[in-house]
Amino acid sequence: MAAQTVATPADPGTTDSATAESATANPGSVDLGPAAALSCRECGHRVPLGPVFACEECFGPLEIAYDFSAYDTEELRRRIESGPANIWRYAPLLPVPADVADKPNLNPGWTKLVQADNLARELGVTGGLYVKDDSGNPTHSFKDRVVAQALEAARAFGFTTLSCSSTGNLAGAVGAAAARAGFRSCVFIPHDLEQGKVVMAAVYGGDLVGIEGNYDDVNRFCSELIGDPAGEGWGFVNVNLRPYYAEGSKTLAYEICEQLGWRLPDQIVVPIASGSQLTKIDKGLQELIELGLVEDRPYKIFGAQARGCSPVSTAFKDGHDVVRPQKPDTIAKSLAIGNPADGPYVLDIARRTGGAVEDVDDAEIVDAIRLLARTEGIFAETAGGVTVGVTRKLIESGLLDPAKTTVVLNTGDGLKTLDAVAGTGLTATIRPSLDSFHEAGLA
Amino acid sequence: MAAQTVATPADPGTTDSATAESATANPGSVDLGPAAALSCRECGHRVPLGPVFACEECFGPLEIAYDFSAYDTEELRRRIESGPANIWRYAPLLPVPADVADKPNLNPGWTKLVQADNLARELGVTGGLYVKDDSGNPTHSFKDRVVAQALEAARAFGFTTLSCSSTGNLAGAVGAAAARAGFRSCVFIPHDLEQGKVVMAAVYGGDLVGIEGNYDDVNRFCSELIGDPAGEGWGFVNVNLRPYYAEGSKTLAYEICEQLGWRLPDQIVVPIASGSQLTKIDKGLQELIELGLVEDRPYKIFGAQARGCSPVSTAFKDGHDVVRPQKPDTIAKSLAIGNPADGPYVLDIARRTGGAVEDVDDAEIVDAIRLLARTEGIFAETAGGVTVGVTRKLIESGLLDPAKTTVVLNTGDGLKTLDAVAGTGLTATIRPSLDSFHEAGLA
Ligand SMILES: [Zn+2]
Ligand SMILES: [Zn+2]
Repeated sequence: MAAQTVATPADPGTTDSATAESATANPGSVDLGPAAALSCRECGHRVPLGPVFACEECFGPLEIAYDFSAYDTEELRRRIESGPANIWRYAPLLPVPADVADKPNLNPGWTKLVQADNLARELGVTGGLYVKDDSGNPTHSFKDRVVAQALEAARAFGFTTLSCSSTGNLAGAVGAAAARAGFRSCVFIPHDLEQGKVVMAAVYGGDLVGIEGNYDDVNRFCSELIGDPAGEGWGFVNVNLRPYYAEGSKTLAYEICEQLGWRLPDQIVVPIASGSQLTKIDKGLQELIELGLVEDRPYKIFGAQARGCSPVSTAFKDGHDVVRPQKPDTIAKSLAIGNPADGPYVLDIARRTGGAVEDVDDAEIVDAIRLLARTEGIFAETAGGVTVGVTRKLIESGLLDPAKTTVVLNTGDGLKTLDAVAGTGLTATIRPSLDSFHEAGLA
Repeated sequence: MAAQTVATPADPGTTDSATAESATANPGSVDLGPAAALSCRECGHRVPLGPVFACEECFGPLEIAYDFSAYDTEELRRRIESGPANIWRYAPLLPVPADVADKPNLNPGWTKLVQADNLARELGVTGGLYVKDDSGNPTHSFKDRVVAQALEAARAFGFTTLSCSSTGNLAGAVGAAAARAGFRSCVFIPHDLEQGKVVMAAVYGGDLVGIEGNYDDVNRFCSELIGDPAGEGWGFVNVNLRPYYAEGSKTLAYEICEQLGWRLPDQIVVPIASGSQLTKIDKGLQELIELGLVEDRPYKIFGAQARGCSPVSTAFKDGHDVVRPQKPDTIAKSLAIGNPADGPYVLDIARRTGGAVEDVDDAEIVDAIRLLARTEGIFAETAGGVTVGVTRKLIESGLLDPAKTTVVLNTGDGLKTLDAVAGTGLTATIRPSLDSFHEAGLA
């Protein structure tokens, strides 16, 4: 992770000036609900809430530190259960103000936890198999969850532009959220992105800027922009707002447990891109245990990668603590991060919980997409093919116990990666006659 | 509507034989909840529940007749409010068994009713503007609602294959629902349908059959198949299961009113394809009034068509009761029915409620898709562009009162009609440098 200086909170007495600078320079006074401070994951150093993401002491990643001390378990449970049918039912556990549900946003989450009995039969799972289907989110990927958190942080810090670098799902999620919330959006993408993906991001009317270069060039440019006066008032959802953004993935853990009747699953299979989602799901499960909302029982977290971008899976199998970067080459574009920032944390969680990290190749991904579609009527993005394919593999290798309750994540929608299953076609072509119908053996 | 012989219910004593014929030949004994019989919309002739759709007396369309007499209003309201977050919360008002929520299906519905304040400002609506966003359904169109009803009827009649003719949304909805429910599916499409649409339908693994001919040829072939022994045990969702299928659209009315706090909207803008959706929404509103679930107040229903397929709008403006068929030529493919079966009923409802029917051309449809996306972050299918575009037009012409509560339907997802907005692209292309960023005027 790149070094980043930490903004120093200004004297609260100097915040009357109306510049963007002063609006973002008083992070200590922001209302982000139970979020109390930012805390370094490596050294524990604490700083006030602000648009920063790296520790000034050790350059480690900053995370949200919460104050949940005032919560009574049963009162909290009732408050959640009577909340809206979206992620804001968990507002007491997120870095957002208490009235977040009243502000204009896309209200993602509370997606279906599908009891997948047909898929279970095919995979030989007897202990209960569930698909957490995040294709039901507003822009049809889990990114709506994390962008919604970044948006609230951006509001709190007085930002007026929402930005990111992206090659896919994130661009649409940021464009849509900004449109709804009345923010300007400016999204940076490689200039040669496929036309379909450009349309999905451009339709929301924000600025969509093509950068002459590859995705690394786009990211380098964004880092430059954050350090420049031109980037003042800009919230880059997964850079200077990353500590807030990342917390959105906790809501997957909350929803799964609540939808299971306030119960931990025995096993959960999560895709790995940067690894942040998996680490935050673990954090969410730990919080539910500590708050007494679920019974403390062992659970195993499994990570899923595409063979063509499997640095964490490779490290896991080799018994390494260090993740060696890879150059991605896979159809699972939304998981194609060759140097995953949270890779070491993922390895730690998989090992600590007794899980594993596994990978599947492109053909297995496509097979798994088709398997999920024909058994449960769920058309998953390539990332969903990765988790379903890895689940099958983990059962075959005995690492995942088919007699235990298992949740598999589908984080996106097949409509966004149609090319992956482009080979799927007609069963038959016939003339409009019963004779032709019978000849084709369709009766 | 084509003539169709009505199946005569067999003697209940003869139903022990295990053939598909006998399973479907005893419609009188099926459990479809409050559905009591089929009743002709034209002459009122009643027949027992069965897989038939046209009156044996007058060839008029058959509809479900319900027995709601046992319901207590407040008990019913509590039952609905404590039901699942999908259409099955309204099971007491639908032709489905009471335990429908326990059977494997896609559980569509309870989609977001989005308070569209940004869009309201642009359109000058002051009385409250809402978008009922059905892109949130499992296969991202309202078709999941109607197919779910047809599936339950198919179960009740002992059918084992779910079928339809389609050129788009319906194919995917049928394929997905059948997969999940363990039915075979066999969907008929014109053989030269675009590859993307073929993939969206084929991925669920059912039979997808290309017919050499146009959509009319496909429909003619399906009618032939229904009359042939080869079609025994087949439920064509929008032909022999049409009376059940069509009822799914009532759930849009129920959800809108419940989401408004058990209140009728003043005005509602509905797209017109066959016209069935609009007529069933009116039926749903009437039922809520009769059941005492909402206060009886006047409401206006407006119909929206694409200029390139506007037979109902043309008849409305000309003051005709008869709808003259048109040959469709519009980007709004999901509304391109040139001879809408329910056209006369739509005219009647629009006139009776004080509404209107209006149309917009392809350019206005694209403009409206972009308008909705940039104001509310909702990326609509072309049909959503039609309703939003017509809403704008109706306000300009004074037919729709901007001071009243208005609900606009978006029945599908923009990801399915990307071509319509293919012209949407990059704001700018720059080199990865701050200089280039400033030159482009993006700061
Ligand atoms: Zn540190
Ligand atoms: Zn009749």
